[in-house]
Amino acid sequence: MASTKQYFCAAGKPIRCKAAVARKAGEPLVIEEVIVAPPKAHEVRLKIICTSLCHTDITLWKLKEFPGCFPRILGHEAFGVVESVGEDVDELKEGDSVVPIFLPDCMDCVHCKSKKSNLCSKFPFQASQLLHRDDTSRFTNAEGETLHHFLYISSFSEYTVVDVVNVTKIDPEIPPNRACLLSCGVSTGVGAAWKTANVEPGSTVVIFGLGSIGLAVAEGARLCGATRIIGVDINSNKFEIGKQFGITEFVNSKSCVDKPISQVIIEMTDGGADYCFECVGLATLMQEAFTCCRKGWGKTVVLGVDEPDAHLNLNSFEVLQSQKTLTGALFGGLKPKSDVPILVKRYLDKELQLNKFVTHEVNFEDINKAFDLLIQGKSLRCVIWMDKL
Amino acid sequence: MASTKQYFCAAGKPIRCKAAVARKAGEPLVIEEVIVAPPKAHEVRLKIICTSLCHTDITLWKLKEFPGCFPRILGHEAFGVVESVGEDVDELKEGDSVVPIFLPDCMDCVHCKSKKSNLCSKFPFQASQLLHRDDTSRFTNAEGETLHHFLYISSFSEYTVVDVVNVTKIDPEIPPNRACLLSCGVSTGVGAAWKTANVEPGSTVVIFGLGSIGLAVAEGARLCGATRIIGVDINSNKFEIGKQFGITEFVNSKSCVDKPISQVIIEMTDGGADYCFECVGLATLMQEAFTCCRKGWGKTVVLGVDEPDAHLNLNSFEVLQSQKTLTGALFGGLKPKSDVPILVKRYLDKELQLNKFVTHEVNFEDINKAFDLLIQGKSLRCVIWMDKL
Repeated sequence: MASTKQYFCAAGKPIRCKAAVARKAGEPLVIEEVIVAPPKAHEVRLKIICTSLCHTDITLWKLKEFPGCFPRILGHEAFGVVESVGEDVDELKEGDSVVPIFLPDCMDCVHCKSKKSNLCSKFPFQASQLLHRDDTSRFTNAEGETLHHFLYISSFSEYTVVDVVNVTKIDPEIPPNRACLLSCGVSTGVGAAWKTANVEPGSTVVIFGLGSIGLAVAEGARLCGATRIIGVDINSNKFEIGKQFGITEFVNSKSCVDKPISQVIIEMTDGGADYCFECVGLATLMQEAFTCCRKGWGKTVVLGVDEPDAHLNLNSFEVLQSQKTLTGALFGGLKPKSDVPILVKRYLDKELQLNKFVTHEVNFEDINKAFDLLIQGKSLRCVIWMDKL
Repeated sequence: MASTKQYFCAAGKPIRCKAAVARKAGEPLVIEEVIVAPPKAHEVRLKIICTSLCHTDITLWKLKEFPGCFPRILGHEAFGVVESVGEDVDELKEGDSVVPIFLPDCMDCVHCKSKKSNLCSKFPFQASQLLHRDDTSRFTNAEGETLHHFLYISSFSEYTVVDVVNVTKIDPEIPPNRACLLSCGVSTGVGAAWKTANVEPGSTVVIFGLGSIGLAVAEGARLCGATRIIGVDINSNKFEIGKQFGITEFVNSKSCVDKPISQVIIEMTDGGADYCFECVGLATLMQEAFTCCRKGWGKTVVLGVDEPDAHLNLNSFEVLQSQKTLTGALFGGLKPKSDVPILVKRYLDKELQLNKFVTHEVNFEDINKAFDLLIQGKSLRCVIWMDKL
């Protein structure tokens, strides 16, 4: 159990440690010594135990233009232990097991208090944020250079400083390399089925894109009692992998040559699916998903991120008369501080499967291997351990 | 009470009576003698007591091209009494007070049995249908000419034949000129607030377009306990009218010159409305509505009908990260046979206001006046009485 170990505590002082720095778009990260400032008020400094690689890290690592930015410490899916706390931090203390979560949860604003939303209005989430909320970084180096943050987290470092609204305390019983999955990807997929769509038992679900997010949607739909879970991908190998997460049928969208994928799904489901999830990030595929969800009650949930100016084109009469619903899910509609501990419990209760998402594990010094594996489509989640395995 | 009167019954025989026939696009209806066939199996023949004019009648009356069609008997918002029933009709009998409703409700298919949908899958609604479901008409004339149906109803006739799936039996206590409003327009608006959006007490609602449908949404939102009901229209006179239905604030969208109406609403509501309803039928306005509904839980409901090829353009990242919902409401998401009787009861219990929707009443021979009044924006609902007032 991670939290029972004794960790170095340098409360109030800067920490020199190793971080993997992204110095140029698309070029291998460089392990460098960085200086991590002590946490300011309402912040905590975390010792990262392990971090895992999410597609969003790769997207921003490749991006030359804003919100791409260099030098920067990427990484946002992780498990850590609180090393020290800043002023006015009551919620967390040294030694707590935590997952950092990009989506803020102040637990106090009208949105955080509402059951209907997970979008904090006191600290609005900005995907393009390069620094902490006071527009400063907690990372410098011996040359005095400022290193930028990523999604308020920057977990590709042995230590990082995070605002308390971005940290969820969890049961230390969960192993670090399972907990980190709940920090972003798996929670997003499971939450989209559980919270955003609220998948009903016996229903039919279609998932477009069987990466980790799509497979996590399948896992969530399975837990909700969906009867048919149809996976759609351009790689037929995904069916075998998908079966482990509850996928019952598979369509290779590349094989749909004489009719659109939406038509194939409408025929398979005798009128349309109860729920469609778009996990690829293509506006045209979001339209296909909307087309093949069932008239009357079909719900389409967008999870994928397309280009900033990509648009869905929906026929207005179709919207009116089909009575289908279109919505999106950021962090799967989950409230970080209250819902993630529930997922931890469901894992510990052996209901939620996390183990199969971890296909690879590497040491921190080999972090660039994790990038290669995900880019080549060989991994679901590659866990990167900060201390040697 | 309409049902206590004795009506002529010609069971099994054709009836010669008067109908207002649309002979040419946009030209005055012509009162002619028509022959109304007896009801076939699963059909009933209705004596129409009164009918009211809805914008959809005008849209199709103006339309030269398909689904415009002539000669045709328009009208679909009405109150009537069952004159005779065809074979295999158990649900209705002679003398029953009924409202015809364009949306079928077979009460038997998976959709009609589900609480989640009002879109019958056994008899799918087709707005472009010109005849009854067996592709024949029940209307001819002495010259042997076939007159086309409209929305399965054709209520601009002293008698008409309708499938039982398009007829709802109601409490005869409700006056005919109130009951007919529940046959389409008012039910659509009230239902959109009550059933489709499920407006919560204390919430903020914005309604784009204060025609009868928009005002009925206001009435529904008022009944649901909305605190702020903001009306948007290009005619400022609508504010005074709207106050009677619960409108608390008004914005003339024509006065929004230096910023879009969505921005005005976002500022008025400190971040966006809980619910937006588009009752005009402009895809661009549907986008504005989506833009100004609240991040996190805002719901936009489309009620307006734009051109068949009009499209909404939604930014895919906005859909993903705003977690707003877009949906549509046909007949306000109401189930004709079970929900309309509830609205009748709420009227009889003096909760639902119907009286103020009726701004004019005319005799059948003056039906073209009703068209003029609605086209000139002078009426909300004009009731047309088949027997002289």
